Amino acid sequence: MGQLQPNLKREQIITAAAELVHLRGYNHTSLDEILDAADAGKGQFYHYFASKEELGLAIVDRAAARIRATLLERVERGQGLAAIRWMLRCLTDTAKRTKCGGGCPLGNLAAEMSDVRETFRRKLAGVFELWRQVIERALITAQRRGELRPGVNARQLSFLILSTIEGAILLAKVQHDARVMERCFQGLWLCVEQLQRPGGGREENG
Amino acid sequence: MGQLQPNLKREQIITAAAELVHLRGYNHTSLDEILDAADAGKGQFYHYFASKEELGLAIVDRAAARIRATLLERVERGQGLAAIRWMLRCLTDTAKRTKCGGGCPLGNLAAEMSDVRETFRRKLAGVFELWRQVIERALITAQRRGELRPGVNARQLSFLILSTIEGAILLAKVQHDARVMERCFQGLWLCVEQLQRPGGGREENG
Repeated sequence: MGQLQPNLKREQIITAAAELVHLRGYNHTSLDEILDAADAGKGQFYHYFASKEELGLAIVDRAAARIRATLLERVERGQGLAAIRWMLRCLTDTAKRTKCGGGCPLGNLAAEMSDVRETFRRKLAGVFELWRQVIERALITAQRRGELRPGVNARQLSFLILSTIEGAILLAKVQHDARVMERCFQGLWLCVEQLQRPGGGREENG
Repeated sequence: MGQLQPNLKREQIITAAAELVHLRGYNHTSLDEILDAADAGKGQFYHYFASKEELGLAIVDRAAARIRATLLERVERGQGLAAIRWMLRCLTDTAKRTKCGGGCPLGNLAAEMSDVRETFRRKLAGVFELWRQVIERALITAQRRGELRPGVNARQLSFLILSTIEGAILLAKVQHDARVMERCFQGLWLCVEQLQRPGGGREENG
């Protein structure tokens, strides 16, 4: 620790806090519990963070960075509708692997914090809007590639897809059953298929 | 209080607790704050509830009863797709009226409690499954009335609709903007319209 890797302890604290907050919520997790899990003292903590709130916002930043790296960048590099379908499958696989434990870290914090802490709400709002824009751009690409009918409102559809994702993760969490997510996404895809251009670029393995 | 209206105080405690929990979450609301808001003493509280958890479960029961009475019973009495569209408009109107404050009481508790208290998870899972079944039955009615194409999977579509509802309420809450919900539902309806039977029972004012 210390001099050579000055941020290692900071990262350890964020990791420990993120895990606890993911399962138990921000307000229900005390700073003492976080420090205990991170094997860190109060002095170390206040060396890196001005407050528990600053740590909470760092958790949001870290979760957002992870979603960008594991999902959104691949959707951006991807191929229209196939990229969106890949994202849905990726989310379902995660739910299966984790047995739906915790749900969506960003969705949980949005539900918990939006009305009580404006700093959290603003940061989370920015992440969700970025996510939606990535989806919208993929839909516009799909339209250019002739997969989606030209008249389809990509913006409205991106709102539908993101709300379905967040709602599906929540329902799977409360039912403790990842198949709930699959059913929500099957319903979504049933609809998206109706908006595809007849015979035009229908993706098979997307 | 007391003899003539034995449950009045109980109702007052549930009402005060439901309001606090809706905005701040269950774990972040202390029993003392609830009693203060309800103008009740500890003795009165333990006369009606064995624990804070029992009160929390009563909050879920009350929220579920309200959704049944204000939304689901009308969807059941309603007319296929028009009834579902009415439900979506009703939810958007509520979000506009309350400026998205609080979000969905059941969704919030599902996000907060599903992984930490099995009693809450089970009760909430039952309410969401009931809600989904009401939507599924309305879709089957729509199919019988010739509004929806016979091949449409009503079960999958009901999962899509409920997940969109919960996701849309969450996104509107984090964006502090009820128009977000409108856009999600417009995207949903754009899709549902594609599943309608051409020329068959298309509802105009639903």
